[in-house]
Amino acid sequence: MPEIHGGAPADDGTIRFVMRCERSRRYEVIAAAVADPSSPMLARAIGDRRALLVTTPTVDRLYGAGLRHVLARWGVQAEVSVIPLGEARKSMITVLEICSRVRQAGLGRHDVLVAFGGGVCSDVVSLAASLVRRGLPYVCVPTTLVGMVDAAIGLKGGVNFRGAKNYLGCFLPPEVALVDLTWLRTLPRAELRCGVSEMVKMALVRDPGLFRLLEDNGRALLGSAFQSPPDIARDAVGRSIGLMLEELEPNGYEDRTLERLVDFGHTFSGAMEERSGFTLRHGHAVAVDMVLTGALGVELGLLAEPDWHRIVALYHRLHLPFLVPQCTPVVLAEAVRSTVAHRGGRLNLVIPTGIGDATFLRDAADLSPALLHRALRRLRIAASPAMGPAGPEMVDLTLVSPVGRPHR
Amino acid sequence: MPEIHGGAPADDGTIRFVMRCERSRRYEVIAAAVADPSSPMLARAIGDRRALLVTTPTVDRLYGAGLRHVLARWGVQAEVSVIPLGEARKSMITVLEICSRVRQAGLGRHDVLVAFGGGVCSDVVSLAASLVRRGLPYVCVPTTLVGMVDAAIGLKGGVNFRGAKNYLGCFLPPEVALVDLTWLRTLPRAELRCGVSEMVKMALVRDPGLFRLLEDNGRALLGSAFQSPPDIARDAVGRSIGLMLEELEPNGYEDRTLERLVDFGHTFSGAMEERSGFTLRHGHAVAVDMVLTGALGVELGLLAEPDWHRIVALYHRLHLPFLVPQCTPVVLAEAVRSTVAHRGGRLNLVIPTGIGDATFLRDAADLSPALLHRALRRLRIAASPAMGPAGPEMVDLTLVSPVGRPHR
Repeated sequence: MPEIHGGAPADDGTIRFVMRCERSRRYEVIAAAVADPSSPMLARAIGDRRALLVTTPTVDRLYGAGLRHVLARWGVQAEVSVIPLGEARKSMITVLEICSRVRQAGLGRHDVLVAFGGGVCSDVVSLAASLVRRGLPYVCVPTTLVGMVDAAIGLKGGVNFRGAKNYLGCFLPPEVALVDLTWLRTLPRAELRCGVSEMVKMALVRDPGLFRLLEDNGRALLGSAFQSPPDIARDAVGRSIGLMLEELEPNGYEDRTLERLVDFGHTFSGAMEERSGFTLRHGHAVAVDMVLTGALGVELGLLAEPDWHRIVALYHRLHLPFLVPQCTPVVLAEAVRSTVAHRGGRLNLVIPTGIGDATFLRDAADLSPALLHRALRRLRIAASPAMGPAGPEMVDLTLVSPVGRPHR
Repeated sequence: MPEIHGGAPADDGTIRFVMRCERSRRYEVIAAAVADPSSPMLARAIGDRRALLVTTPTVDRLYGAGLRHVLARWGVQAEVSVIPLGEARKSMITVLEICSRVRQAGLGRHDVLVAFGGGVCSDVVSLAASLVRRGLPYVCVPTTLVGMVDAAIGLKGGVNFRGAKNYLGCFLPPEVALVDLTWLRTLPRAELRCGVSEMVKMALVRDPGLFRLLEDNGRALLGSAFQSPPDIARDAVGRSIGLMLEELEPNGYEDRTLERLVDFGHTFSGAMEERSGFTLRHGHAVAVDMVLTGALGVELGLLAEPDWHRIVALYHRLHLPFLVPQCTPVVLAEAVRSTVAHRGGRLNLVIPTGIGDATFLRDAADLSPALLHRALRRLRIAASPAMGPAGPEMVDLTLVSPVGRPHR
């Protein structure tokens, strides 16, 4: 079933993954020097179509001039639309604002939208693309690590609605996602950690090699904003992308099964984000969800203590959060209820059973309040500095990001 | 490719069409006595899921009590949501209102929406269903003729946006559409004519038999609101449904080709509706578009004069409009521009070449202003009472419906 090709660098240094999915569509994820004016990658992706490129004020300030230079250099017909984004602006209002700009620009059904920004940018652009004329093509140029390994390479768009995370959305793969690690050099550390959290997700349920790579090099990668060591940065991001696409390919539209390994870390996280009014970063909520689920695994006898200690040590090493103020029994119970509604009556909680291996807890009834209580206690112990290399960055353990950070 | 089964009545009197489309979906159109409390059809369609049923104040006043009786009789868990609809309310605001009610009702991913109303009702419900949790199932119970032969049995949802007809939308087939002609008995004559217009559409490009049926019985069907002769009413509606599904099946998502016979009558109509501020009824705009396109066919030497005269005679017989105030050279030119944008750079104008046969005019350059001018003159002549049986109903020729009629 999976037909994902790629991973090996081509002559021009690009790494190409081809994803074949249903509905007559295929898409490519290409790791390439998009930011380099001599690179034709973005111009090739747009072709001779008209394009509306959506970006945020922060990305525009940092990279807008360079991007316009690339577009002009290759004679691309693109209009750039700068729109404030951020989790709090991940709403239908923003999507409709993009639709208005598409209409003003007079784009036709075979023209193209480009999302140039982080995960929220590709989330709202893909939903706008799916709505306009019942579906325009779109291209993703992710500028954050979350975008590169998760949001921009999946098939899903979505917005928050009436306090519910991603309550409205669509399935629509991009034509192509162009991944260039050089954009990451200006990304705040807390944002990088959100991307690392999604990488830990894939490593924990699929790939012990990637887990080891993060154990050995995660700190250096975070410290250099994935600029060095360059080979290891490319390897880590490339593996994460390949794993994600492999998981998505046979069930990209979630119409085969609602048991999905990529939902690891995404059962309790949404409710915590909702409770925070979407000020808690998605990647931080995912990190807490994963380590909580690991603790549940230990309590259920599914995950061995030594594996649990490796997870805890990695969290300390990468300063991933163990707990956030929103991780309370009340919120967790609410998360279980809404997850069951979202996953068609089943909980389908992904629980790690080892490093690179996982199983599903299908029935919500198996998740008793007492069990959750024990897991939370285990988390509090694991989070204590005594369990890891204490340091000034430990303040991140309960980090709540400021509202409406534009660079998502 | 087509796998549409049906047309022949089953033992219980139902007629069943099964449509297999891509994306792991199939759907059924069932002509059955849904309104009859002894009929289990609606209860079967909903099953043991929770349902939110969306309807309009008019339909609720006429049929709400009966429907609640049917639901209670069969123990269905359904909440009824009455929302004012109509072409002017076919907007994202209405769709989001439905999404809010789905959230309030706490529906899960495997629960179901039901559209109980006309074409606008199924248009907005299907778009809401496609957005909530990236896709809930939905069921259509059309109460108008347009709904039965067109809107509720297709795969498309859509709303108007910033003055543009169906600018935002989705492809999402219903699980099932339940067609019961008894709802039509209270439908205003002008609304019935809109449905007849969509039936003429399928007859003209696909089925000379259906065209003859409408020549012979159309007037009686309109006069009896499709209640008698019952066999002929069922035959006419059943044929229209079968033809529509046959045309949709191989290309339901419009990703194979943008040359679609079902777009007949839908090239100039949207611009006329937009120009009217959506007070012009869709079916009337389609009627004008079709007869205009017929006139273009004659002028281009593609349609023989005797066939043209049969079309003109049918229009007079059924009091279908030849012209509306919005059918001007300026609006037609605008329609050509926006159609080319919507059909990926091609005009793909469907032109009848006989009764039951058609071809495509692909290039907008072939549609000169002089040609349009000659076709409009031909229309004005055809519309004159001298060309048909004059009568008091001829006032319908330029009928513009009142704003916001709720019963759509």
